Amino acid sequence: MNQKERISTYLESKEAIHAGEYKKICKLDLLETIANNRKICHSMEQAIEKCGLKDGMTISFHHAFRNGDYVINMVMEVIANKGFKNLTLAASSLNSCNSPLVQYIKDGVITKIYTSGIRGELAEEISAGIMNEPVNIHSHGGRVHLVKTGEIKIDVAFLGVPVCDEYGNASGVGFCGSLGYAKVDAANADKVILLTEKFEEYPFTPASIAQDEVDYIVKVDQVGDPNKIGADATRMTSNPRELLIARKASEVIAKSGFFKDGFSLQTGSGGAALAVTRFLENKMRSRNIKAGFALGGITSSMVKLHEAGLIKKLLDVQSFDKDAAQSLKVNPNHLEISANQYANYSSKGASVERLDVVVLSALEIDVNFNVNVLTGSDGVIRGASGGHSDTAASAQLAIIVAPLVRGRLPTVVDQVLTCVTPGENIDVLVTDHGIAVNPERPNLKRRLEDAGVSLVSIEELKNRALELTGIPKPIEFTDKPVAVVRYRDGRVIDVVYQVKHYG
Amino acid sequence: MNQKERISTYLESKEAIHAGEYKKICKLDLLETIANNRKICHSMEQAIEKCGLKDGMTISFHHAFRNGDYVINMVMEVIANKGFKNLTLAASSLNSCNSPLVQYIKDGVITKIYTSGIRGELAEEISAGIMNEPVNIHSHGGRVHLVKTGEIKIDVAFLGVPVCDEYGNASGVGFCGSLGYAKVDAANADKVILLTEKFEEYPFTPASIAQDEVDYIVKVDQVGDPNKIGADATRMTSNPRELLIARKASEVIAKSGFFKDGFSLQTGSGGAALAVTRFLENKMRSRNIKAGFALGGITSSMVKLHEAGLIKKLLDVQSFDKDAAQSLKVNPNHLEISANQYANYSSKGASVERLDVVVLSALEIDVNFNVNVLTGSDGVIRGASGGHSDTAASAQLAIIVAPLVRGRLPTVVDQVLTCVTPGENIDVLVTDHGIAVNPERPNLKRRLEDAGVSLVSIEELKNRALELTGIPKPIEFTDKPVAVVRYRDGRVIDVVYQVKHYG
Repeated sequence: MNQKERISTYLESKEAIHAGEYKKICKLDLLETIANNRKICHSMEQAIEKCGLKDGMTISFHHAFRNGDYVINMVMEVIANKGFKNLTLAASSLNSCNSPLVQYIKDGVITKIYTSGIRGELAEEISAGIMNEPVNIHSHGGRVHLVKTGEIKIDVAFLGVPVCDEYGNASGVGFCGSLGYAKVDAANADKVILLTEKFEEYPFTPASIAQDEVDYIVKVDQVGDPNKIGADATRMTSNPRELLIARKASEVIAKSGFFKDGFSLQTGSGGAALAVTRFLENKMRSRNIKAGFALGGITSSMVKLHEAGLIKKLLDVQSFDKDAAQSLKVNPNHLEISANQYANYSSKGASVERLDVVVLSALEIDVNFNVNVLTGSDGVIRGASGGHSDTAASAQLAIIVAPLVRGRLPTVVDQVLTCVTPGENIDVLVTDHGIAVNPERPNLKRRLEDAGVSLVSIEELKNRALELTGIPKPIEFTDKPVAVVRYRDGRVIDVVYQVKHYG
Repeated sequence: MNQKERISTYLESKEAIHAGEYKKICKLDLLETIANNRKICHSMEQAIEKCGLKDGMTISFHHAFRNGDYVINMVMEVIANKGFKNLTLAASSLNSCNSPLVQYIKDGVITKIYTSGIRGELAEEISAGIMNEPVNIHSHGGRVHLVKTGEIKIDVAFLGVPVCDEYGNASGVGFCGSLGYAKVDAANADKVILLTEKFEEYPFTPASIAQDEVDYIVKVDQVGDPNKIGADATRMTSNPRELLIARKASEVIAKSGFFKDGFSLQTGSGGAALAVTRFLENKMRSRNIKAGFALGGITSSMVKLHEAGLIKKLLDVQSFDKDAAQSLKVNPNHLEISANQYANYSSKGASVERLDVVVLSALEIDVNFNVNVLTGSDGVIRGASGGHSDTAASAQLAIIVAPLVRGRLPTVVDQVLTCVTPGENIDVLVTDHGIAVNPERPNLKRRLEDAGVSLVSIEELKNRALELTGIPKPIEFTDKPVAVVRYRDGRVIDVVYQVKHYG
């Protein structure tokens, strides 16, 4: 309608309006809906009905509870029982706890999946070919990109939160911690259903998800087990080989030229990567260096450095353990950020772009420094893309820490089974048998050598690994794709095929 | 592209990818753009060029500095000098300080305007008919609705902030206070330019506008004068007539049935409305009642009640004075909210819907309780829609406070010159000559009478006003519309015509 049409529409009903007959958005109507607590549903079934979920739609979940999540299985059971089919599941990540999804895939309830990772029985079954459409494996930043470009169009987001008010102001602070992934879904989904453990008085503040992002709320007994958030991936290692690697990696950081006051840091999950902070702490104290910020999944070891005044700010997209979740509550400079702010390359500004140093793990790395964090040595999916490529692509110094061999199989290989992070994004590989710098980084190589770090070539490491393990038996695949790896800009960067002996 | 096409595209370039030739989003490219501080522009001209501003586009501004704003005039001068034409100006509000816009309208730089209000010379000239297209006057919530529905499609938002970091994390806390209106533009504009007075170290937290919402940043000497934010509209009155009205209004609140522990409250600007809090404070203390929250433009009197423990939380879309801006910094339960969360009826949940009591001013109110807050007794625009209809439509108890006559002209009339808030949204009128309850609220009327409040009919008030003033000389208008009043759902609810003696 243009301005003239608007005016003439008005003029037609002018007398009625001035006589008080302007009833459409009437106060009394509003009051009634409020008196009914209009967002609160007595059951998940009711919330799903109100959202108008239909076959073929896309539903989403966040993974703040990681392997302690109860929401995905709980909601999918209701959805399956209601007979929905052909849904796209867009979870920010999936874990071993999600094995019940196997049945829903077999039954045609879920026919398409977007996720950062898959593990356990679900991953094994997918590798064995139970889906017709290959799973899309994206990075954490890449997921937001796919949401913003519309490829992932979330119809209904099911977001578990520990606490909210009856209008939907919600927070994970003190419980699961940051709701950085959920924030993206809350902001972009057509309909948003909160599952909450507890109601607080309106207005509940500060809120991570706000009232103007929430359609319906269902109270449930428990949305997840916070004790299981950091169970495996974020334990502090006592493995001497991992500690050796971590110590070497901290030396590389200290001598890289990027270790100066105000530097920024992220460590991925995995024993050696997490242990790097322990060795870095001593170097920071002795050289009087404080970090400007630490980024990403925040762990208790980061929190300790923050509370000791060694890291000024923590930018937290996901709290990796209970200490981090608690810190978010008590430390004013421990901040929650969305996955878009964290790592989306097409956002107007992602924090990964401000990152100096990132320390990451690898299942495999090849002589071109391509990294596999997705498929195991048997070719079966057992990992997650996570923030690996987002941080490696953006940080000034991207270090891979990995043992040279794992259980008689080489970590450094000629060509990775699955490329998740392209080698050009990786600067240094630190193993228990030596350190290799990407030849594309001659300045870094020179700085490290000048500082007395002994380096080897990645080919030497690969050869050394082969000496130790012998040539591994090649894995046989069929030609059926079971997953595609989407780079952070959405392009397919690799394909995972069905493993033959599963076929 | 579908999944199959994605896979075959990948397979075509597979070898190159694995050989490390995956260059598109290359680390070194990113580092270079960061090294250049890619968002920071050396001048407003450069920022405008980078945004690709074109003739016919829509530009937006926020009014956190109210009459102390420097940004609108500063930016418009640059835009006019660069020769742009035919722009739509979507300001959250305009003030007397914006008289330089008159020339840009006459020169065809600005040809369409959306705003909550207009005052001063700009308002007079618009009432005199300098624009071909009538100005759209919207409420604060209505503006967000028009933005979300796409009628206002902001191409470039120019957002003045006191401080930000070089990536755009910005805040007004402690200076102009809440950036509740700016937040909407930051979230919805295609391009966002920040004008900042000061850079802080990255990451600046907590941020009201986040790095992933900002395209470019320009440093300027001053974005506004915080001393002028509350200059007129929010002064505390010493006028005995206003104090009388305020005292009566506080009595109405206390006896309305809505005055109970946990109630919520908003007062509009204007002497009597603001003074209501003063009288309410005594009643809250003596009856041991604490408010759950106060909403809207937050003033120093609200802050005092909050700090005295009488109001639990302050939900602040715009800090109305320096005390409020400072409180936002030091009081953890003084929260910034966006205009969408504040008042947009089509949002998933606006705080106005949770409001028990709102006290509002009026330039005119008619026997159908329709309220004019836009045009003066001479028919000339001199006010703003603001949150008037948003709060009145939603609050359980909407009270208008106004003197019966102003300078020999009646406030209570047969028909308002301009209807901004329809009468069905108004519950009570409190004047210095008596209190009238909307006959559509018989329960409220009974409660007040039972509590000993003496009431009159609004017709009696109108007649009393006429006795005092005589019948005012009718204003002569031409048939040229100069402004349309858009209700909170976007519909035209009234039209303002050109005043004849200006014509």
